[in-house]
Amino acid sequence: MGPHPAVAAIRLAVRRVLHDLLNDQQNPGAHPDRPAERPPSPLVLVACSGGADSMALASALAFEAPRLGIRAGGVTVDHGLQPGSDLRADEVVLRLRQLGLDPVESVAVTVGREGGPEAAARDARYAALDALAERHGAAAVLLGHTRDDQAETVLLGLARGSGIRSLSGMAAVSGAGGRYRRPFLHVDRQTARKACMVQSLPVWDDPHNADPAYTRSRLRHEGLPALEKALGKGVVEALARTAQLSRDDADALDSWARQAESSVRDAGGLLECAKLYALPPAVRRRILRRAAIEAGAPAGSLFARHIEEVDRLITGWRGQGAINLPGKVVVQRQGGRLVIRQG
Amino acid sequence: MGPHPAVAAIRLAVRRVLHDLLNDQQNPGAHPDRPAERPPSPLVLVACSGGADSMALASALAFEAPRLGIRAGGVTVDHGLQPGSDLRADEVVLRLRQLGLDPVESVAVTVGREGGPEAAARDARYAALDALAERHGAAAVLLGHTRDDQAETVLLGLARGSGIRSLSGMAAVSGAGGRYRRPFLHVDRQTARKACMVQSLPVWDDPHNADPAYTRSRLRHEGLPALEKALGKGVVEALARTAQLSRDDADALDSWARQAESSVRDAGGLLECAKLYALPPAVRRRILRRAAIEAGAPAGSLFARHIEEVDRLITGWRGQGAINLPGKVVVQRQGGRLVIRQG
Repeated sequence: MGPHPAVAAIRLAVRRVLHDLLNDQQNPGAHPDRPAERPPSPLVLVACSGGADSMALASALAFEAPRLGIRAGGVTVDHGLQPGSDLRADEVVLRLRQLGLDPVESVAVTVGREGGPEAAARDARYAALDALAERHGAAAVLLGHTRDDQAETVLLGLARGSGIRSLSGMAAVSGAGGRYRRPFLHVDRQTARKACMVQSLPVWDDPHNADPAYTRSRLRHEGLPALEKALGKGVVEALARTAQLSRDDADALDSWARQAESSVRDAGGLLECAKLYALPPAVRRRILRRAAIEAGAPAGSLFARHIEEVDRLITGWRGQGAINLPGKVVVQRQGGRLVIRQG
Repeated sequence: MGPHPAVAAIRLAVRRVLHDLLNDQQNPGAHPDRPAERPPSPLVLVACSGGADSMALASALAFEAPRLGIRAGGVTVDHGLQPGSDLRADEVVLRLRQLGLDPVESVAVTVGREGGPEAAARDARYAALDALAERHGAAAVLLGHTRDDQAETVLLGLARGSGIRSLSGMAAVSGAGGRYRRPFLHVDRQTARKACMVQSLPVWDDPHNADPAYTRSRLRHEGLPALEKALGKGVVEALARTAQLSRDDADALDSWARQAESSVRDAGGLLECAKLYALPPAVRRRILRRAAIEAGAPAGSLFARHIEEVDRLITGWRGQGAINLPGKVVVQRQGGRLVIRQG
């Protein structure tokens, strides 16, 4: 008799990613400048909070990695946001060691305030994971984000109303050199939880996940269930599919914009309005956005309405004055050209 | 003192569309083959259910049209789905006449069952509006869909998970020759309701709109409010903006796919896998989708997962057999070409 279907599902998801890794790089842990320290086999780390998703991921990695000649390690990040979080981290380390992972480390980080509590915690976490992965020469760090997390991320992007890039959710492969991998983007939270249960893995429910002060928590416990009630049970899957399709579409349009950009600049490098006008709006606005960012506008503060206003210099020209963008970037139309500079 | 801000807002929205219409076509009601029947000035009809949105639209059209030398008429569709719906339609006709609209007509339709109750009612309604617009030689038919309706439509599209085209909501201009115009896509429902109130226009609340048997009604009264509670009040606006951005993106990618298609066919007109492989996935899948529809697959039954399976003949070729698509369309890879035909 094989494993429980939930366990089979999480293992298959991890096995696929490990196969990809082996295909991508034959000896990814090697440091060409330090051949003496070359590890005997690639090391894959799992980032684990002790919650059901990442515990399930850790268990699947512990099972699959040795079968493929891969070393499996783990890391837990102590964000220091709750009393006793250090003890919690020690407990997670213990559990990961019990699964047979080695090395296992706990890393304490200091969470700042920039961009709100969720963004600050995320920034601190990835910085710590990056550093640890470098130190161990890890080929990859696995993250336990599930299809449900992906659906929530799409809705959060939707709420920004800033276009299809923000609908594309989390990538299956991201970070420097494709370091971060998310094997569970097609696995639902229920399956991860079930896999822990049938493997008798104790899991920890982060109280933050149920704290209505957090947007994602409100979305998870109220927004998404209400949407499922209205639209049917397939919503989470549909959102996850939307993420993938949107990502591919956004990539294609970005590449079009990159290619088109050189053809719409004059000899002096200025954007020619007549040539921009001839492009599809979706491509033109991407070129305008890229140009504004290149001139110094911070990407995060540049909204669709800013680009629309710049676009009207091309599509609705009636002698408008200069347009001020975030980062003190000023856009003006002069002699059929756009002059974009930091003032 | 000017009109109430809500009244000013709805009038401005209608005025913009009427200006567009005058720019688009100087004498749109003219029948070149029947010069004797040429109307004295273009006719614009408003489709009115008697609800707040379309009553507000009718009042704004009645106010703005004469100032621009445009004749304004109205039509209400009796779907015959509720007892007394004919009396209701008569009442709407009366109200539209009281606003000064002329001609005003009530049209009774028979709602079939195809595609579910909402789709069947919509099909019957547009067929009747098309016929009426033809008969009167109307330049346009105005529809009262608001920004809130648009937001709901985006969420309904999201639930299908079939990509950015289904996120693009309703077009501001649609139908044969751009007949249908939606002046209120940037006006919220609250404003329309307020405009009716301050103009003392009686409005009718369609019980269907509050009937939880309808998906859109559940979305309106439960799903969207819960989403707003989780994500903030800007959700409706963000969804409407997503619709516009997605529409532009989908248009650009469709045009790319159309252009690329000829370059990936061999002399015999078959799609060459190697050339398809070199395209961005978003463009390649659109070409595959178009080819499947051209071969006879019904667009409405062709889902993302079908196209993904066909795509694997190109990106993950390992000698797969023929793939069956809806509409008895069969796709096979033979000698580096895709053979797509109806079996």
